[in-house]
Amino acid sequence: MPHAKTPVGVLGATGVVGQRLLSLLEAHPWFEPVWLAASDRSRGAIYGEAVRWHLASPLPAAAAGMELQPAAPEGCPARLVFSALDSGPAAELEPRFAAAGHLVISNASALRMRPDVPLLIPEVNPEHLALLRQQREYAQRGGVVTNPNCSTVGLAMALAPLERAFGVEQVFVTTLQAISGAGYPGVASLDILANVVPYIAGEEEKLETESGKILGTLQSQGGVVPANIAISAQCNRVPVLEGHTEAVAVKLRRHAPLAEVRDALARFRGRPQELKLPTAPASPLRIAGGADRPQPRRDVEAGGGMTVTVGRLRPCRLLDYKFVVLSHNTLRGAAGAALLNAELIHAEGW
Amino acid sequence: MPHAKTPVGVLGATGVVGQRLLSLLEAHPWFEPVWLAASDRSRGAIYGEAVRWHLASPLPAAAAGMELQPAAPEGCPARLVFSALDSGPAAELEPRFAAAGHLVISNASALRMRPDVPLLIPEVNPEHLALLRQQREYAQRGGVVTNPNCSTVGLAMALAPLERAFGVEQVFVTTLQAISGAGYPGVASLDILANVVPYIAGEEEKLETESGKILGTLQSQGGVVPANIAISAQCNRVPVLEGHTEAVAVKLRRHAPLAEVRDALARFRGRPQELKLPTAPASPLRIAGGADRPQPRRDVEAGGGMTVTVGRLRPCRLLDYKFVVLSHNTLRGAAGAALLNAELIHAEGW
Amino acid sequence: MPHAKTPVGVLGATGVVGQRLLSLLEAHPWFEPVWLAASDRSRGAIYGEAVRWHLASPLPAAAAGMELQPAAPEGCPARLVFSALDSGPAAELEPRFAAAGHLVISNASALRMRPDVPLLIPEVNPEHLALLRQQREYAQRGGVVTNPNCSTVGLAMALAPLERAFGVEQVFVTTLQAISGAGYPGVASLDILANVVPYIAGEEEKLETESGKILGTLQSQGGVVPANIAISAQCNRVPVLEGHTEAVAVKLRRHAPLAEVRDALARFRGRPQELKLPTAPASPLRIAGGADRPQPRRDVEAGGGMTVTVGRLRPCRLLDYKFVVLSHNTLRGAAGAALLNAELIHAEGW
Amino acid sequence: MPHAKTPVGVLGATGVVGQRLLSLLEAHPWFEPVWLAASDRSRGAIYGEAVRWHLASPLPAAAAGMELQPAAPEGCPARLVFSALDSGPAAELEPRFAAAGHLVISNASALRMRPDVPLLIPEVNPEHLALLRQQREYAQRGGVVTNPNCSTVGLAMALAPLERAFGVEQVFVTTLQAISGAGYPGVASLDILANVVPYIAGEEEKLETESGKILGTLQSQGGVVPANIAISAQCNRVPVLEGHTEAVAVKLRRHAPLAEVRDALARFRGRPQELKLPTAPASPLRIAGGADRPQPRRDVEAGGGMTVTVGRLRPCRLLDYKFVVLSHNTLRGAAGAALLNAELIHAEGW
Repeated sequence: MPHAKTPVGVLGATGVVGQRLLSLLEAHPWFEPVWLAASDRSRGAIYGEAVRWHLASPLPAAAAGMELQPAAPEGCPARLVFSALDSGPAAELEPRFAAAGHLVISNASALRMRPDVPLLIPEVNPEHLALLRQQREYAQRGGVVTNPNCSTVGLAMALAPLERAFGVEQVFVTTLQAISGAGYPGVASLDILANVVPYIAGEEEKLETESGKILGTLQSQGGVVPANIAISAQCNRVPVLEGHTEAVAVKLRRHAPLAEVRDALARFRGRPQELKLPTAPASPLRIAGGADRPQPRRDVEAGGGMTVTVGRLRPCRLLDYKFVVLSHNTLRGAAGAALLNAELIHAEGW
Repeated sequence: MPHAKTPVGVLGATGVVGQRLLSLLEAHPWFEPVWLAASDRSRGAIYGEAVRWHLASPLPAAAAGMELQPAAPEGCPARLVFSALDSGPAAELEPRFAAAGHLVISNASALRMRPDVPLLIPEVNPEHLALLRQQREYAQRGGVVTNPNCSTVGLAMALAPLERAFGVEQVFVTTLQAISGAGYPGVASLDILANVVPYIAGEEEKLETESGKILGTLQSQGGVVPANIAISAQCNRVPVLEGHTEAVAVKLRRHAPLAEVRDALARFRGRPQELKLPTAPASPLRIAGGADRPQPRRDVEAGGGMTVTVGRLRPCRLLDYKFVVLSHNTLRGAAGAALLNAELIHAEGW
Repeated sequence: MPHAKTPVGVLGATGVVGQRLLSLLEAHPWFEPVWLAASDRSRGAIYGEAVRWHLASPLPAAAAGMELQPAAPEGCPARLVFSALDSGPAAELEPRFAAAGHLVISNASALRMRPDVPLLIPEVNPEHLALLRQQREYAQRGGVVTNPNCSTVGLAMALAPLERAFGVEQVFVTTLQAISGAGYPGVASLDILANVVPYIAGEEEKLETESGKILGTLQSQGGVVPANIAISAQCNRVPVLEGHTEAVAVKLRRHAPLAEVRDALARFRGRPQELKLPTAPASPLRIAGGADRPQPRRDVEAGGGMTVTVGRLRPCRLLDYKFVVLSHNTLRGAAGAALLNAELIHAEGW
Repeated sequence: MPHAKTPVGVLGATGVVGQRLLSLLEAHPWFEPVWLAASDRSRGAIYGEAVRWHLASPLPAAAAGMELQPAAPEGCPARLVFSALDSGPAAELEPRFAAAGHLVISNASALRMRPDVPLLIPEVNPEHLALLRQQREYAQRGGVVTNPNCSTVGLAMALAPLERAFGVEQVFVTTLQAISGAGYPGVASLDILANVVPYIAGEEEKLETESGKILGTLQSQGGVVPANIAISAQCNRVPVLEGHTEAVAVKLRRHAPLAEVRDALARFRGRPQELKLPTAPASPLRIAGGADRPQPRRDVEAGGGMTVTVGRLRPCRLLDYKFVVLSHNTLRGAAGAALLNAELIHAEGW
């Protein structure tokens, strides 16, 4: 007889990230969505009727028939609750769910930079999960674990092996971000068709601060000392559907030959690969095949959207090396990130 | 009685840049195209039948009826010859035209970095025209004058007032370049629709080297000493029709407050404005109006496509300032650049 | 001394069509905007600050400084008022303005099919203006004149000369419509980037009914008897910025050779051309130049956006002829249509 | 011990359709590619190096290492040879392969309308395979079987159940076709970005003639009497990656209520479903879920790209019914079509 799956809830189930989550959960070996909530407007509706489904893969049949619940912890039967909420509602609701004993796996930015909240990439800083113990204001069993902003993930994952092997001192990053990163309706077509918008509210700040926390050192007495990396970011929206492309330049603390840097990137593995977590790709990073790669439309699905692709590694006239990073913004950068966090938590017995 | 216009020739008249040139020349107060040449394949054909016209403005009636000539100096009645050739043919043909006594106003990259060839932006380095005197291997009256690569122009124009006022030491630039920069047929739609291509052959090298020559110092004994600016470039193709967007970070030799930097950019003027050249915009640089500007589709036509727009000027965590530059790649970056060069040459009596 | 210009008002001044109107009015020889109104949210704001300007041409300086007024007839000093409102507000506000003695030149659909409201294309049915006399429930000097839906204009203009010369019995039309037709924010980029949406709410009904009224016969006792043309429409949204493309097939009442049909289209002229109205193009219809034309991006600006382009005229296996029609949806299909209506009204002394 | 797979060859292996074929063959239960050929230019090269891979799925490892062979029957070890050639080379090479005893499963248009060549959609006219017996000029065991043009497949599949149940008399069809239908490099981005091209060379003729043959009746003495359906087609290229959308109107020979028509479409099944061919979808046709569907980006992957989606079925003012058809142009319209033909041939023992 198979073991029963762990029931999970989803806050913000009708949005772009919520849809990705339900799609990933459809055939998940460990988790089963039993409780879906969305904004007040949709409450009481049947999911399949309330949602405007954006994905090319079909709406999961099980989710389609579920009734949308009020977004409040009362009545939520699942201990593990994914949050695909916008930042505003997340700031109010996530602490309430944690206080009620739920483990909130959040994609929202609201609590990411709180000293006692893990900002987690399972391949990079799985030990930060220990911060959960510090979430004292929450009920004994509750807590919040967050994943990074969609534009941070690719950068932080590419920096992680460089930080470990050589130390990273300075980073320039210019992003070319997909429209799906803004949700739905999100970016108006009149704003982005055959155009570039060289500004995304709040995005550069996130990119400049989150990586330091992720690559930072957990203190025995609690908290994380951020890695000492100075990052300067410039963020652009481009007419691409999925996949954030980032032009990166790095200054290392110890200069290393290009082949060594490439090796560090290509060999990078982490806890999810050791534990063979269901959503973990075989390689969290891969080196792109061609001189003009990675490209979002052609490389974004690598590793089921969970592998970050690095290409065009070459010397930089000002810092040490330049390269291009591509990551799937709604999988590795959102729904897949949250799911991998949940899998790590589950596998490590939290 | 009005003075007769100066006759001009156009090499590469059927390409994207050649079309822009003929469109600009249609109602030009000084110049009149009397001789058009294209590749061997088109020779002998009538221009209006041989060209695949790309512009929204109509094909100029006068040009439509002209016969395409062999691309050779013999039989070209105009002293002033615009070259909108690709780099390969330009390397062979431009010296032949110069040797035959023609003044070649070239948009091609072939001869740009030759020590005795001016790489000219009339607002920035009009004095470099004096290099023409060094083109001794050419016949007495001939010579070649070039304009920069389409991605260099915006950057060099934005750097010029900063170099003058504060000195520029380091520059990071990441480009988001329009498809028209690759000519026709150029970029395949399967490569770029809803995609980014993070590589353009040869482009980063041009961007890293041309600005130094443009901002360099003419030596009394001949030649130009390049400006001592270290530039690191990362070039991307994006699905935009016209307008190269560039995310720039600069380190100044003398740090200055933001307001002073903004003023230096906004007040920039040059010889074309003094001389009121026909194609000169009132302001070669302007500061964009909104927090999310400049955007190619909305700002590229500023100053008839000859004004470069700068926006989002703000401090940089690593260097001094960051900003976004937008320039029209086939006008200020190609056909308009060549025409402004020709106007400067004409006005200054070369 | 020049005559003073006629003052005009604009309802819905901040929307996509309102912006086009103000842009067209900036240098208009007859009209001068003196009163701008927008939704309640914007009221009291300065236009230049409240508007999100979409056009590549700059925001007109005069309009930029004007204060937005409440959308009510009280206090509106202009007799002539353009309405660029959405259908809902138009249904309520336009009759109020008419009742207060204003002549409302409306782009909205709300009142188009009312028996006493002219649905006007000045080249096609200028005599329908006489319906204004029937608008008895309005104050003596007031009234409402409408222009057709943006997808109807191109079709009705192409049908007009065919109806006159041969009679039109049946029409099949499939549209490929630009995103600007949906206003701002309008179509979400996630819905339309690299996609087709084969449905536009209410559009097929408008296309199937409006042409009959436009091409109909004014009755001496009032009202219009619609032309007896059966139209079947299929409407699609495509990722195009400006310009509705329509694939049309027609059955004529009297079959005519292709050359005769082409001539009827090419020679079409109307009252605006006779009166040389400021916004009238030299030719309301033109035949496209190439086998693969008209194309929205390359042909939409013909005649300043007021000329409709017809191409690919060829026999049809089922009806008589097939052809492609392209019209500028926010100029000939909206703001320019309203302005031409106002010019006709002004020139004919209403 | 598993049975050995049937070896197959692929002509035109480097093109867009050839890539799709190799991707589909990678894990095919019956067939295994053992011989790849491309144009003379690529011959002798290793496939993985010669191909510019366009798909988001990775290049199959087995194919990557294969050497490209000369495109001639000599030395081709496989009896079954797929042809993804362009029409020109196909006209010359396919008969040579057939004469040499190969069964050519062709996607090219060259031989489609030959009286003795089956133009096959396995769900629609599997009995037409019998035409193979008439290919007498070929060697005993050889022959050519073709699949329809990519824009024909969707239409013919939607018409098939209507023809069977009610008879079809007239059809209007306007297409909005994806760029991948033109191969690579195919459509230049300058031609199609934010644009529509209302012309595709030869496409309307194919659409107007191929369906008649497909839906026609096999004669006992040989040949096919085309179905008596008058079709009028208008073809457009739109900026979509995969998926041809078609706006269709039909006149039936026996008028039927809408529900009956919908049922006929939804219930359509054929030989591939009976035989459970590996590439056969469960439903060859499905009815789209929403009022604004089918949409290429959201529905094209239905049934692994082998299900044709029909939506917006509604009455027509001129004929009987209108609807929208979407089909995957490089799967159901090309590579998948050829593969399904091969599977039918294999399963039926030819």
